Amino acid sequence: MNRVRALALLAGLTVLLGCGAAPIAPPPPTGAFAPFAAEVARILQPARADRGAFQKLTELCDGIGNRLAGSEALDRAIAWAQATLRADGLANVHAEPVTVTRWVRGQESLELLTPRPLALTMLGLGGSVATPPEGVTAEVVVAHDEHDLKLLGERIRGRIVLFDNPMPVYTPETGAQYGETVRFRGHGAAIAGKLGAVAVLVRSVTARSLATPHTGNTRYDDDGPNIPAAAVSTEHAALLTRLIARGEVVKVRLKMQARTEGTAPSANVLAELPGREWPEQVVVLGGHLDSWDVGQGAHDDGAGCVMAMQAVALLKRLGLQPRRTIRVVLWTNEENGLAGAKAYAQVHAGELVRHVAALEADSGAFRPEALTVELQDAEQEAKAAAQLHQLAGLLAGMQLEIRQRGSGADVAPMKSGGVPLVGLVMESSTYFDYHHTPADTLDKVDPALLAQGEALFAALAYVLAEWPGQLGR
Amino acid sequence: MNRVRALALLAGLTVLLGCGAAPIAPPPPTGAFAPFAAEVARILQPARADRGAFQKLTELCDGIGNRLAGSEALDRAIAWAQATLRADGLANVHAEPVTVTRWVRGQESLELLTPRPLALTMLGLGGSVATPPEGVTAEVVVAHDEHDLKLLGERIRGRIVLFDNPMPVYTPETGAQYGETVRFRGHGAAIAGKLGAVAVLVRSVTARSLATPHTGNTRYDDDGPNIPAAAVSTEHAALLTRLIARGEVVKVRLKMQARTEGTAPSANVLAELPGREWPEQVVVLGGHLDSWDVGQGAHDDGAGCVMAMQAVALLKRLGLQPRRTIRVVLWTNEENGLAGAKAYAQVHAGELVRHVAALEADSGAFRPEALTVELQDAEQEAKAAAQLHQLAGLLAGMQLEIRQRGSGADVAPMKSGGVPLVGLVMESSTYFDYHHTPADTLDKVDPALLAQGEALFAALAYVLAEWPGQLGR
Repeated sequence: MNRVRALALLAGLTVLLGCGAAPIAPPPPTGAFAPFAAEVARILQPARADRGAFQKLTELCDGIGNRLAGSEALDRAIAWAQATLRADGLANVHAEPVTVTRWVRGQESLELLTPRPLALTMLGLGGSVATPPEGVTAEVVVAHDEHDLKLLGERIRGRIVLFDNPMPVYTPETGAQYGETVRFRGHGAAIAGKLGAVAVLVRSVTARSLATPHTGNTRYDDDGPNIPAAAVSTEHAALLTRLIARGEVVKVRLKMQARTEGTAPSANVLAELPGREWPEQVVVLGGHLDSWDVGQGAHDDGAGCVMAMQAVALLKRLGLQPRRTIRVVLWTNEENGLAGAKAYAQVHAGELVRHVAALEADSGAFRPEALTVELQDAEQEAKAAAQLHQLAGLLAGMQLEIRQRGSGADVAPMKSGGVPLVGLVMESSTYFDYHHTPADTLDKVDPALLAQGEALFAALAYVLAEWPGQLGR
Repeated sequence: MNRVRALALLAGLTVLLGCGAAPIAPPPPTGAFAPFAAEVARILQPARADRGAFQKLTELCDGIGNRLAGSEALDRAIAWAQATLRADGLANVHAEPVTVTRWVRGQESLELLTPRPLALTMLGLGGSVATPPEGVTAEVVVAHDEHDLKLLGERIRGRIVLFDNPMPVYTPETGAQYGETVRFRGHGAAIAGKLGAVAVLVRSVTARSLATPHTGNTRYDDDGPNIPAAAVSTEHAALLTRLIARGEVVKVRLKMQARTEGTAPSANVLAELPGREWPEQVVVLGGHLDSWDVGQGAHDDGAGCVMAMQAVALLKRLGLQPRRTIRVVLWTNEENGLAGAKAYAQVHAGELVRHVAALEADSGAFRPEALTVELQDAEQEAKAAAQLHQLAGLLAGMQLEIRQRGSGADVAPMKSGGVPLVGLVMESSTYFDYHHTPADTLDKVDPALLAQGEALFAALAYVLAEWPGQLGR
């Protein structure tokens, strides 16, 4: 991991500055940010008491539901977001057109045929091609990792590869280990296809399951071949692995109607609180409005969207108009293409030099745990991390680590434009239980924790837009 | 709750005996059971290291899978259990015929029609009747409890009633509160049918869900009417309730092919370790071999069955043949009729007077937490509780409460025959996450905890069969 833990960073700084006191808790507000302590306190208190974000999330989840890019549901969400931002009194509310790939799941099923018939719990992976109408029927071989795949060699040809690599149990020390576990969902089909597999099954990327399949995107290589790919519940991945381990011939039939139906019009939603002194300078904050086509996209990433929307609505309501413009951006198509993120960076390319920060929240509505910071220039990034550490000292009641690298997917395309990217990272002990599943629903969201995210967004956006300095400078 | 907590009981006893020391931990082995300390230690140690119960559970879950009464799968399980018990060298292995009701689920679905189309996560309740082929389409009304039902009054007529009473979150003090929460699953259809409802939906009985429906039995009254009944995931129960609360007209279409196909032959499985002195006297121990028709019936109650099977196999292997006969009984049809339990009590009615104890484990493979004891005679029950408390003192490393009342469903019919009933109760903080769901699978079972159950069964059965005294006498 490329993380620099806050304490390690601070220890380094204190050595650098010749200051020997061992830092335990974040320092009191100091330096450049001290003048904002009163305003931050004025923001945090009502933000934490605010239930407006949860009200918005309820409208999004219950009124619209899940919303894959290119779906009518996302179109409705885009219209809802604009209407809501307008009702909150924000300026320049508009949708910026983005062309997205339209992927449709269709009917799908996975049946165990031998050693005994059983309906298996599955969810096709986004971007997958269909099977023939009669399905793909083949024996299953198991690979836990790349090494296993090598050992299987020719036995992959004509078979279905099950990638059964379990997500480890979360610990505060190791985190969720999503990045390490998800790799076969991403490129398993591409790898196995080249080795002659006729389809792949991927163990759902979660450490905790109640017969719950997890979808997510898969990518083929340009030179193919494109073979069907589906996630299977951890329970059934483990079952197939056990059956094979005891010498059974495991045959399954995978049927998927999944298809990419060309492209579809979609949009990013933008809204602004115009700056009072330097309105041409911008602090971006947001989340992605699209979700997978299951559940309600409550944590992923309805939460990030409504935190950002409500944070700016709150600043407006409090009459706080900072020097720079604060711009809410709700990106489209994060889940399966990043077309919204790329379009924003492209359309606003000439303006990126005046983006003083781009903030994204895309890790659910849990206790804020860290800020990530990422900048093209390493020295600037280190400086920005130190600045954020000072800024975090203003946020009474939050113990935020500052980590270098690892910003949100939607802000990432702005990196090459020199924009300081800041990720709002939430505690992740349960996030991946819900992530990309039918269980990512409103009832899993704690309104008080959602308000913590709103508070963090509001305070950060306000200070970064008001402070005459700039992150990394 | 009719429980008498061990400490309260012991406190009462100490007062009775004029002994003022405050008891904190179970007392050291004393009284009648002291002579068995060495044998118990000889049993516990290898039992805890034994992985034979997990091997058996693997065969049952992976080789056969779920096994509803009247299904071919249960027939295979009955054959497997006999073969396994014979292979372990037990005596008198046989199946005792039991006629069971044969209920078949068939295809089923629940669709939200208004305010917007959505496939809802459901699982028909066992014993339910079918809907017409075109389904039952009606508006949903919500009742959280009996009071709500009264308030709804005439608005129930022609509607579908959703019973949305959430299971509270588990705490060590309150337990899982299953009994209190499950009532609408049991009799909701009967009550709502009489009030004119056309179907009922019941919120799944669990405090933790990942889009996981929980089935279970429902019962109609003899005078009907019999209306279709299905469980819905907690997520979707909560969604319907929220939609209705905000004034939406919620219409759904329920389709179920569920049907009772008369009766089918089934069987209880019996096997014995014959007593060396008083073979006509019997200690029964077991679980129920049937399960619901989803998941693998791993915790419910494959675990109880294999704990009992392996406990007796272990005693046999250790060459421990107590004075009385130890009889393993694997009951059929616990889930939807109790025909196996009733048949055992009936067939063995003349023998019950020589049953010195009947032990059942039917709460999964978790840390043993308590023993329940139930006897027709209240004085005998109190005495048996005190005796079990002493006996529990032999079980080094287990901190068992002794609770009066609440024995297993399969031993309950022996109560009127004067048999002391003993339930092995496991810690239940997660049991109801899995109970009656597709997630009750082998991967949820910890082999070491399963072996703890085996150890408890083996030690209890041995002592009760060897000890010249009798529980309650």
